[in-house]
Amino acid sequence: MNKTSACIYGGIEAGGTKFICAVGTSPKDLLVKRFATSTPKKTINEVITFFKPYVSEETPRRLTALGIASFGPLDLSKESPRYGYITNTPKPGWKNVNLAGIIKDALGIPVIIDTDVNGAALGEQEWGAAQGLQTFVYLTFGTGIGGGGIINGELMHGLVHPEMGHIQIPRENYDKPDFKGSCEFHQCDQGYGCWEGLASGISMQQRWGKPPEEILVSDKVYERAWNLEADYIAIGVYDLICILSPQRIILGGGIMNHPNLLEEVQKKVEKLLNKYIPVLDSFDKIRSYLVRPALIDAKSSIPLSGVLGAIVLAKRMYHGT
Amino acid sequence: MNKTSACIYGGIEAGGTKFICAVGTSPKDLLVKRFATSTPKKTINEVITFFKPYVSEETPRRLTALGIASFGPLDLSKESPRYGYITNTPKPGWKNVNLAGIIKDALGIPVIIDTDVNGAALGEQEWGAAQGLQTFVYLTFGTGIGGGGIINGELMHGLVHPEMGHIQIPRENYDKPDFKGSCEFHQCDQGYGCWEGLASGISMQQRWGKPPEEILVSDKVYERAWNLEADYIAIGVYDLICILSPQRIILGGGIMNHPNLLEEVQKKVEKLLNKYIPVLDSFDKIRSYLVRPALIDAKSSIPLSGVLGAIVLAKRMYHGT
Repeated sequence: MNKTSACIYGGIEAGGTKFICAVGTSPKDLLVKRFATSTPKKTINEVITFFKPYVSEETPRRLTALGIASFGPLDLSKESPRYGYITNTPKPGWKNVNLAGIIKDALGIPVIIDTDVNGAALGEQEWGAAQGLQTFVYLTFGTGIGGGGIINGELMHGLVHPEMGHIQIPRENYDKPDFKGSCEFHQCDQGYGCWEGLASGISMQQRWGKPPEEILVSDKVYERAWNLEADYIAIGVYDLICILSPQRIILGGGIMNHPNLLEEVQKKVEKLLNKYIPVLDSFDKIRSYLVRPALIDAKSSIPLSGVLGAIVLAKRMYHGT
Repeated sequence: MNKTSACIYGGIEAGGTKFICAVGTSPKDLLVKRFATSTPKKTINEVITFFKPYVSEETPRRLTALGIASFGPLDLSKESPRYGYITNTPKPGWKNVNLAGIIKDALGIPVIIDTDVNGAALGEQEWGAAQGLQTFVYLTFGTGIGGGGIINGELMHGLVHPEMGHIQIPRENYDKPDFKGSCEFHQCDQGYGCWEGLASGISMQQRWGKPPEEILVSDKVYERAWNLEADYIAIGVYDLICILSPQRIILGGGIMNHPNLLEEVQKKVEKLLNKYIPVLDSFDKIRSYLVRPALIDAKSSIPLSGVLGAIVLAKRMYHGT
């Protein structure tokens, strides 16, 4: 019997505000549950309650393995005694939580964990906007900024997992002069600051006194705020192109839902490149190069890249690929 | 008989100012010749003259294959009819030169080509400062700025070969206000410019009116010039750390021979990181993380990373690895 045909997997996208849990094998065979992230104890209990029926001896479709795509930072070193821990996250209560271990012990099946953005990259590669590509990046612009890269078909795990959100970008001269950025590590006090500190949802909230989704067209800072956001996103995306030379970049996360933002970013990246890379020397080429994620639930609009990527992680671990 | 033992390889580091040709198998078994780069015709003739005796039927140690690590940009797409060409280089006379093809036809042995920095990275991985590492970067700071990355053991070849030298970095406020950078694609007119445009040897020459090796301690701009250079190099290196999370970065090229420059860069990168990455939270850790190339001829001080990497390219092609 084909080893794959009988297999069903669990997937978790563990986010700072929402957890998405799913069982299934692909976007066409997927049962999804989403709930708010609260304390680790309560949240992990909710996760276990959801998956428990799928690991019982009686169920006809017992889970083979489970993947987790999680917010971080994470300890992903397989030799580490703290493999699968969320480490020094600023999220209250979640520091040093043994996320993978607790779930593994409770469910009694193999569990694998990676970053949320690496998960999303895998999901998009398998079924979404990066099908057939060997070298690409998935970026998320939400509360924070993070990136997951696949190079020559493999996830990037180097010294630590690269987060990409902390590159230094120049401050635009029309930014608020007194705004120092939101990053606890990298204050913007010399004409530049880190990407996350200048362009994340948190930084928009701190700079303008309201979260990005409330900065509306009626607002007097609307144009300045969103133009600035597009400028900052474009510079970081441009730097990624120069360093990684990906075949495509997928831009996900809540902020990217803002109307026209993607198009503005595409225009600004075109300007920054200034025909330096011949295969990206027109707006049309850049439009099909900087794209949205494809894995979104049609009815609920819930993004599924991460949780589907978690299922890919589980599948690959089980099959040793 | 072991396929390797009888094999000898040719290697070329093709640089904008010098060509280094070698035959051998490793740093301990290497015959090297270096000469100035002139016109393509003259230079390539000199290359062929050097290698010709090693491909004759009579020689007891006939070359098995030849690798080239070349300045670029290059066409490295194996499907392209122009594979192995130097494409739109600004170097006079060298645009659209079929470097790999002409040498292959003249010598009648298999020839493989990659970028100079990818070559240097391979050489350092095999015998130098990156032995045993799977994910690292080799950077060169000379006439231009370029980088070669190995991720999960493999060279980076994505959309195009990444050059890394054109990331946008912020202009320091103590730079010369009227200096627009030296890059033809990326003018520095908005408080930032590209790395190569602000920190390459050419940019130093344009900014200060003399090449870097002539900006001496007796010079009144000495401190400003070299402090600026260290600041710019540090920001770019920092960005590479955030995006690629390499296990080590090797800093080569003529500019890095300036006394104390590497140490200044290490200090500034430490400050930029600001303990954001725990495994790089002290100067000592950064000192063994940002290092010089190890492959340098002891007598002549000629850097051999590139030409030895070219030999690695030839060896791997021949053995299909």
